[in-house]
Amino acid sequence: MLSERSELSPARWMWSLWFAMELISEKGHPFAEELEKIQCSLQDVGSALATPRSSAREAHLRRTTFESGRVLELEQWIDKYSGQLPPLTAFILPSGGKSSAALHFCRAVCRRAERRVAPLVRMGETDANVAKFLNRLSDYLFTLARYAAMKEGKQEKIYKKSDPSD
Amino acid sequence: MLSERSELSPARWMWSLWFAMELISEKGHPFAEELEKIQCSLQDVGSALATPRSSAREAHLRRTTFESGRVLELEQWIDKYSGQLPPLTAFILPSGGKSSAALHFCRAVCRRAERRVAPLVRMGETDANVAKFLNRLSDYLFTLARYAAMKEGKQEKIYKKSDPSD
Amino acid sequence: MLSERSELSPARWMWSLWFAMELISEKGHPFAEELEKIQCSLQDVGSALATPRSSAREAHLRRTTFESGRVLELEQWIDKYSGQLPPLTAFILPSGGKSSAALHFCRAVCRRAERRVAPLVRMGETDANVAKFLNRLSDYLFTLARYAAMKEGKQEKIYKKSDPSD
Repeated sequence: MLSERSELSPARWMWSLWFAMELISEKGHPFAEELEKIQCSLQDVGSALATPRSSAREAHLRRTTFESGRVLELEQWIDKYSGQLPPLTAFILPSGGKSSAALHFCRAVCRRAERRVAPLVRMGETDANVAKFLNRLSDYLFTLARYAAMKEGKQEKIYKKSDPSD
Repeated sequence: MLSERSELSPARWMWSLWFAMELISEKGHPFAEELEKIQCSLQDVGSALATPRSSAREAHLRRTTFESGRVLELEQWIDKYSGQLPPLTAFILPSGGKSSAALHFCRAVCRRAERRVAPLVRMGETDANVAKFLNRLSDYLFTLARYAAMKEGKQEKIYKKSDPSD
Repeated sequence: MLSERSELSPARWMWSLWFAMELISEKGHPFAEELEKIQCSLQDVGSALATPRSSAREAHLRRTTFESGRVLELEQWIDKYSGQLPPLTAFILPSGGKSSAALHFCRAVCRRAERRVAPLVRMGETDANVAKFLNRLSDYLFTLARYAAMKEGKQEKIYKKSDPSD
């Protein structure tokens, strides 16, 4: 029980995201402003998750509604970057330098969070926009990881099947 | 069971703390010496947690007693820094540059650890000073995060409620 | 259940390893190539863990066999570095600068992973070479942490028992 509760708590994954995003922001990338907006939105994700719809007061629920505008905004950002990227032709490792690797890491954390939020949405306890936001956020982070590697001139490492005869 | 046990094990959170503190220490801040002392104390926290009072041998228990002096020391350090900080007037994000964000992250890890240690203290299996140490350590890390941001001239980011009409 | 499953999933620990290794790789150490090979092998560890022997198709199992050659390679690397290191005379903290601390952290993550994989090997669901690989990988990472500290001229911090009369 203890462990299940703590897994569902936003704390751990959210703190990992905040921390990794702060590491990247320091580099002065043009997308730092987007990451700051996302850091605020994650705070709202936390509030929404901490406010189960079946038991919270009406006024509190209104305050923690998660607007769909933020999902649309992420989609626009994804389109903006993905148009500039070379196509994926091989399986890449979460590499491409420090910023890119941090973004790949954030994406993995975000995907896990999405899987944990999904049942809460199905049970009607959490706004579906929260899950949609996390879903688009994973895509955004993956796209941005590749974009950051490209902008910093870093190589994306390709997965190579180890050859035992090597 | 497996997962519950691993949650209670000090390993994961303590390694996160050690690692993040080492990142900060490298920057040559005047508080690096304090962090090094804390890194040693965390080792003792680990020993105390790994030695349940109900079943451990007397000699072993004496060796793993956790002295209250370390709690007082943290309180002195907190007072020293908090006297120099501007008052908190808004909800800040765990930001303020790399060192500050790492310290905010450490604080979150530490708060979770404190919550896990609390039932062990209630059951009489762990020295109450261990929980007190972790409690003051969270406060110390929060204060230090703000102090590090100030000293490095970094901006603390303020949480802004997203406006859907933006 | 949820939490137990997610604990067993390779995702979290493996992403931590990939990320930390990428941080170190950027420093241009001569062992960066070894870390890149390991990043690929970890991908194969993930595939092997995701393919339980009792239920997977024959062709899939052949593709996810984990070669013992990679265990031997790690052993050679361990020998190469440990021959150059000063003997351990005290209990060291996971310190020695950023790269070294990241490697100590990776080692802790890896040891936890090994403990989780062990029962899968005992049940015959996972190739024993996977567990052996993780076991040697911990040793490699510990040796490399000490080597990196030495090469970067960083001090390994010694654990000091706090003296209450200090």
